[in-house]
Amino acid sequence: MRGEGVWLYDQKGTPWLDAYNNVVPLGHARPEVVEAIARQAAVLNTHTRYLHEGILDYAERLLATMPPELGHATFTCTGSEANDLAMRIATAHTGGTGLIVTRFAYHGVTSAIACASPSLGQYVRIGDHVRLVDAPTGDDAETGKRFADGVRAAITDLRAHGLQPAALLVDTVFSSDGVFTAPAGFLREAVEAIHAAGGVFIADEVQPGFGRTGEAFWGFQRHGVVPDMVTMGKPMGNGHPVAGLTVRPEVMQAFGQASRYFNTFGGNPVSMAAASAVLDVIQQNDLQRNALNVGNYLREKLAALGQRHAIVGEARGAGLFIGLELVADRATRAPATAQAAKVVNGLRQRQVLLSATGPDANVLKIRPPLVFQRAHADLLVERLDEVLGTL
Amino acid sequence: MRGEGVWLYDQKGTPWLDAYNNVVPLGHARPEVVEAIARQAAVLNTHTRYLHEGILDYAERLLATMPPELGHATFTCTGSEANDLAMRIATAHTGGTGLIVTRFAYHGVTSAIACASPSLGQYVRIGDHVRLVDAPTGDDAETGKRFADGVRAAITDLRAHGLQPAALLVDTVFSSDGVFTAPAGFLREAVEAIHAAGGVFIADEVQPGFGRTGEAFWGFQRHGVVPDMVTMGKPMGNGHPVAGLTVRPEVMQAFGQASRYFNTFGGNPVSMAAASAVLDVIQQNDLQRNALNVGNYLREKLAALGQRHAIVGEARGAGLFIGLELVADRATRAPATAQAAKVVNGLRQRQVLLSATGPDANVLKIRPPLVFQRAHADLLVERLDEVLGTL
Repeated sequence: MRGEGVWLYDQKGTPWLDAYNNVVPLGHARPEVVEAIARQAAVLNTHTRYLHEGILDYAERLLATMPPELGHATFTCTGSEANDLAMRIATAHTGGTGLIVTRFAYHGVTSAIACASPSLGQYVRIGDHVRLVDAPTGDDAETGKRFADGVRAAITDLRAHGLQPAALLVDTVFSSDGVFTAPAGFLREAVEAIHAAGGVFIADEVQPGFGRTGEAFWGFQRHGVVPDMVTMGKPMGNGHPVAGLTVRPEVMQAFGQASRYFNTFGGNPVSMAAASAVLDVIQQNDLQRNALNVGNYLREKLAALGQRHAIVGEARGAGLFIGLELVADRATRAPATAQAAKVVNGLRQRQVLLSATGPDANVLKIRPPLVFQRAHADLLVERLDEVLGTL
Repeated sequence: MRGEGVWLYDQKGTPWLDAYNNVVPLGHARPEVVEAIARQAAVLNTHTRYLHEGILDYAERLLATMPPELGHATFTCTGSEANDLAMRIATAHTGGTGLIVTRFAYHGVTSAIACASPSLGQYVRIGDHVRLVDAPTGDDAETGKRFADGVRAAITDLRAHGLQPAALLVDTVFSSDGVFTAPAGFLREAVEAIHAAGGVFIADEVQPGFGRTGEAFWGFQRHGVVPDMVTMGKPMGNGHPVAGLTVRPEVMQAFGQASRYFNTFGGNPVSMAAASAVLDVIQQNDLQRNALNVGNYLREKLAALGQRHAIVGEARGAGLFIGLELVADRATRAPATAQAAKVVNGLRQRQVLLSATGPDANVLKIRPPLVFQRAHADLLVERLDEVLGTL
């Protein structure tokens, strides 16, 4: 098996179009990143008890992509570790433990975060201190108010149970909930609500971060809000295990004074070299703009499939994070769950890789490397059209 | 800054002897590992939703180093994640939550594991479900019984609080407690005690694993016990972020049936290539035997310093994991805490890197790469002799 750009090749050399893989935003086996890793690994790779300029340089570059309020960066190896640490910081800062997430959220696999990730399934018990709110469906002028109403109700319920709200934690494209990105700005009222209750807002940018939404470098920026913490992971090293978080210094203070945090591999010289090469390639090739342009093009073509196939519902998303809802009935929006699985498999048989998401698994999740071009979008839509015709 | 073998070089080219770094057991910038990483990264590096033979091959090789009862391997990115997952598995298997660790244990930095890592300091609150037992000091015929007595008392106390014991979790060289390795076999009675109570035994091999103790490939093997789970991390990829755990299949069953576990970067092709190259080098160069021989040589020379310096207490450990206790009084073993800090700094001024451990930070922690040679041991002892003479 090998990969190159948006293509994966199996042992027989058959090419597969990868329209799913956000772990490699620059495309598979991107030479600039491979070279950066090889070069630094040959010189030095050790943990951050030994100071190294790589971590300082990268932290500065990363913080420069963020609002100035976010002045502190810490590195981990995985998005799970970043969210887990964010909750430790939120608890130290607020004195509370209450955590609000969406009804089908996914934030990671550590004990503390799995219990706030209902999309893992019914056998992972939701924490006593966790409240679930409806995802921001709708795309209308009231979307933000409805979402904030849910957050306010959760705050009231936490307090009724004697729990102080610590944080609202959301993926800013609501990927596992089914991809909800519109209207941009809808997050604002919910963020005000958690702040009014003394809690912090944590933007989980593992999915939308690093330019994927096209409209902004970070998903939260589309909403005109400044988070108290921003967590990030998957695309950060184009496959190399590197993740982290940025924090407002005043929010970091309580945790920083009381606790040591040392992550052996977090921020090591090779991880920082990989992450730095990723930033270089995104910025030098303006992949954010490519995500916007190709994403808009692809979303329009997907929406147009609705003229030929009644099963096609809403085509939503931002940039190269797209959710295509498949419905049994457009009026009721009843989910076409079984057909969605058939579509994913039908595409797989035609060498196109994507997946389904949402509580009913009826939303095609289209999330290709950011180097996706119009020709790739055309091929994807052509194959999808074919598969929809066979249902 | 660059590294090569047991040496680190600063910007001026001054060499520093690294007698502390277990993240690079094969020495800094080991060419075989650098090459394996660069080669695989240039071909493919993605997550394990795409099957790859690298993870299957490595899992088989890893399990071949373990007792046959441990038949299942899972990969993460950090030792913290491995211990966190081990506790999720233990809880699913036993139905209990009670966790027993040593009084100055360190097992990681996720929320669930930090609350069972008292060495992080008093500001990290110990979990209500966690019990602390005395480390196995003493090195006599009763060491095992005393340690098991502590475990049995903790089990009784957990039950008195209505908690079912889930696991006994120990670092099998008790590094943060001050390095306790003798007499080999002392763990057996404690393991029997946790099993009798319906709990599991988790061997944290992040420190002792991969041949460091010289006497065995895994620390638990020195004690003639077979754990229910084995967690591992730091040395596994010679600096590359890779970690994991092995489990008895019957212990994995409850968690495996109920929960999905997907770790984006865990077990990815590049991590597996790095880990596989590390196993190759350890096995082909018999670094376990080198750890035994050079470790014994170094420990004897360190013990002999006691003839010249009254501050030198016990020189203990196994292979290249050595603790040299510094005492204000040999009879009472009163800790020489302030002097230990002076020794660490004095060695640093003489370009030798090591650290201090234990609740009183009076035990020099000597844990060099496994490629350490007698000449390096001689240099370390010579510089230490010098520093002790200045106290």
